Amino acid sequence: MPKIGVVLSGCGVFDGAEIHEAVLTLYFLQKSGAETICMAPDIEQLHVVDHLRGEVAAGEKRNVLTEAARIARGNIKNLADVKVSDFDALIFPGGFGNAKNLTDFAVKGADCGINPDVLRIVRETVMAKKPLGAVCIAPVVIAKALEGTGIKTSVTIGSDSDTAHAVEALGTTHVNCPVKDFVADEKNKIVTSPAYMLGRSIPEVAEGIEKTVHKLLAMI
Amino acid sequence: MPKIGVVLSGCGVFDGAEIHEAVLTLYFLQKSGAETICMAPDIEQLHVVDHLRGEVAAGEKRNVLTEAARIARGNIKNLADVKVSDFDALIFPGGFGNAKNLTDFAVKGADCGINPDVLRIVRETVMAKKPLGAVCIAPVVIAKALEGTGIKTSVTIGSDSDTAHAVEALGTTHVNCPVKDFVADEKNKIVTSPAYMLGRSIPEVAEGIEKTVHKLLAMI
Repeated sequence: MPKIGVVLSGCGVFDGAEIHEAVLTLYFLQKSGAETICMAPDIEQLHVVDHLRGEVAAGEKRNVLTEAARIARGNIKNLADVKVSDFDALIFPGGFGNAKNLTDFAVKGADCGINPDVLRIVRETVMAKKPLGAVCIAPVVIAKALEGTGIKTSVTIGSDSDTAHAVEALGTTHVNCPVKDFVADEKNKIVTSPAYMLGRSIPEVAEGIEKTVHKLLAMI
Repeated sequence: MPKIGVVLSGCGVFDGAEIHEAVLTLYFLQKSGAETICMAPDIEQLHVVDHLRGEVAAGEKRNVLTEAARIARGNIKNLADVKVSDFDALIFPGGFGNAKNLTDFAVKGADCGINPDVLRIVRETVMAKKPLGAVCIAPVVIAKALEGTGIKTSVTIGSDSDTAHAVEALGTTHVNCPVKDFVADEKNKIVTSPAYMLGRSIPEVAEGIEKTVHKLLAMI
């Protein structure tokens, strides 16, 4: 039974992990016979967004690991305690948490910073030749983590040209891709899918994620 | 395209809607060609549970509708504004929010109270002969709403004897049921499945929910 790490960035599309993408990733991994290991950094969120009003909830503070534990039903590890030897492959579901908490790409684009444990786990996964997946906006985390390493990969964030240009500015090739498909870099074992960067319904997003998960497992 | 109302009770298994059950319910409904309409009451949660530590987060307050909006990606209605004519069938995913926010069954068992809009929408759905579904602990909401109406139904919450006895004390018959199956009351068009009351993995829970959703749609 392969062990797959799932990196969550909070709980909610606008300030954390995208909930549908996270659950579908876990579902298709387990359905394919994998054991899932949820993890998140123990850091404060950039901010809290009121998902009803679509506005920042002024003054509110939440912790990424504590909120991600909602998706994981409490069964989650602090990313700082996770080693690359703990899993056979790693995947990042989407959500703005990737661009607000794991990196600050949403604020600074290609000039963003990245959480040091996220940087470490992405680089070590690629260096160990273990498969790495990312969904929706999460490929920007991979692009940022691999910036300056000399590792050249290709990813998709769908077809948004501003985001694609920022990915390219980080030294990663961007490939346009429809929601129900994925992009695979066979050499570096990196697989990505647009999900809600393009998707309009859960089944569309699910189809891309299911294929991504199957490809991730096949690359082990 | 049938319109299916999905009643959410927050966002997180221990103080709101169970996230996996909610997403899988929405996924299988949409995959079957239904339009989903998320709704939740605009009320304060009974409490906030830190899902990492499994403890009540003292002093913290959250709103059921605002948190449920995370699962709905912001596309959610205030339950107070929803009429039975707005949908063709109604379903309650599980999570402690059903027993803490929609009712206070978790605190008071069969002596619990129920939110007036939840009471209204359940009774009107059954009276209109529109199918009604409930997953995990949510059948207690149906049992409480139908208490004293003379409508006799059968539901399952799995096989937990304390909860089953409390359901029976409310005047509803309890039927033991495995996680991958469901219980249907054909006369009243009520369908229920144990999900995480018994389930140990997402695929197990998904199988019961998928069958429940298909039965719900078939009863329209």
